[in-house]
Amino acid sequence: MRIEVQPIGFVHTDVDPVPRHWSVSDAEGTLMIDTKYQDGLKGIVAGKRIVVLFHFHKSPGFTPDLLIQTPYHGKWQKGVFGMCSPKRPNPIGLSVVEVLEIAGNKIRVKGIDMLDGTPILDIKPDVDQNG
Amino acid sequence: MRIEVQPIGFVHTDVDPVPRHWSVSDAEGTLMIDTKYQDGLKGIVAGKRIVVLFHFHKSPGFTPDLLIQTPYHGKWQKGVFGMCSPKRPNPIGLSVVEVLEIAGNKIRVKGIDMLDGTPILDIKPDVDQNG
Repeated sequence: MRIEVQPIGFVHTDVDPVPRHWSVSDAEGTLMIDTKYQDGLKGIVAGKRIVVLFHFHKSPGFTPDLLIQTPYHGKWQKGVFGMCSPKRPNPIGLSVVEVLEIAGNKIRVKGIDMLDGTPILDIKPDVDQNG
Repeated sequence: MRIEVQPIGFVHTDVDPVPRHWSVSDAEGTLMIDTKYQDGLKGIVAGKRIVVLFHFHKSPGFTPDLLIQTPYHGKWQKGVFGMCSPKRPNPIGLSVVEVLEIAGNKIRVKGIDMLDGTPILDIKPDVDQNG
């Protein structure tokens, strides 16, 4: 059973290196959404947090030795599903970012931890914030 | 550009109908993870919240008329990226559920809003809770 997805847009950022995780990132970037999906952004406004799902497009293929990994702090090992590593069975990332500005199909955000050129798969409201 | 993903397991639940959203759900169910990924669950323990990404496997194909939708409360319209509708360009769902018990490859959880048989794509820690 295989499921196909495709980008709705791409991340653009000049930040290099990118912070290791959105929860510790003040880095800014722009989510460039395909204009054919622009109407779907209605209701996204500055000041809100949004959840961005994206493709870890630079990750290597997953192999069984990656089921247990050592996080950045190197203190102990964790299962891949208990951590945010980009090396996952399905290389889908999740970041929660703050909307700084939205204009047309471009969303300027703060909290970037994705590489420039990262394919965006979905945007959702941050329900923990928005209720 | 197409990206392929495949299930790491499936949701099992007797709840019918399922609540409309995890944030208002006390429904219980079990995440049955493929045993080949079982080691990746190390570190997931009862009492923690986890983020589950899944495939909206019953959703129809996406068409442009679905870019703007009316949420369940019917009060106003929103863009698809500002809401949690299962009808999305990439039919990936996100639920935050509480771990009640974990035994081998089976995770008993509370907060189910997925249909029985839903393909699971990923499990991640709930960083908002776990820091």
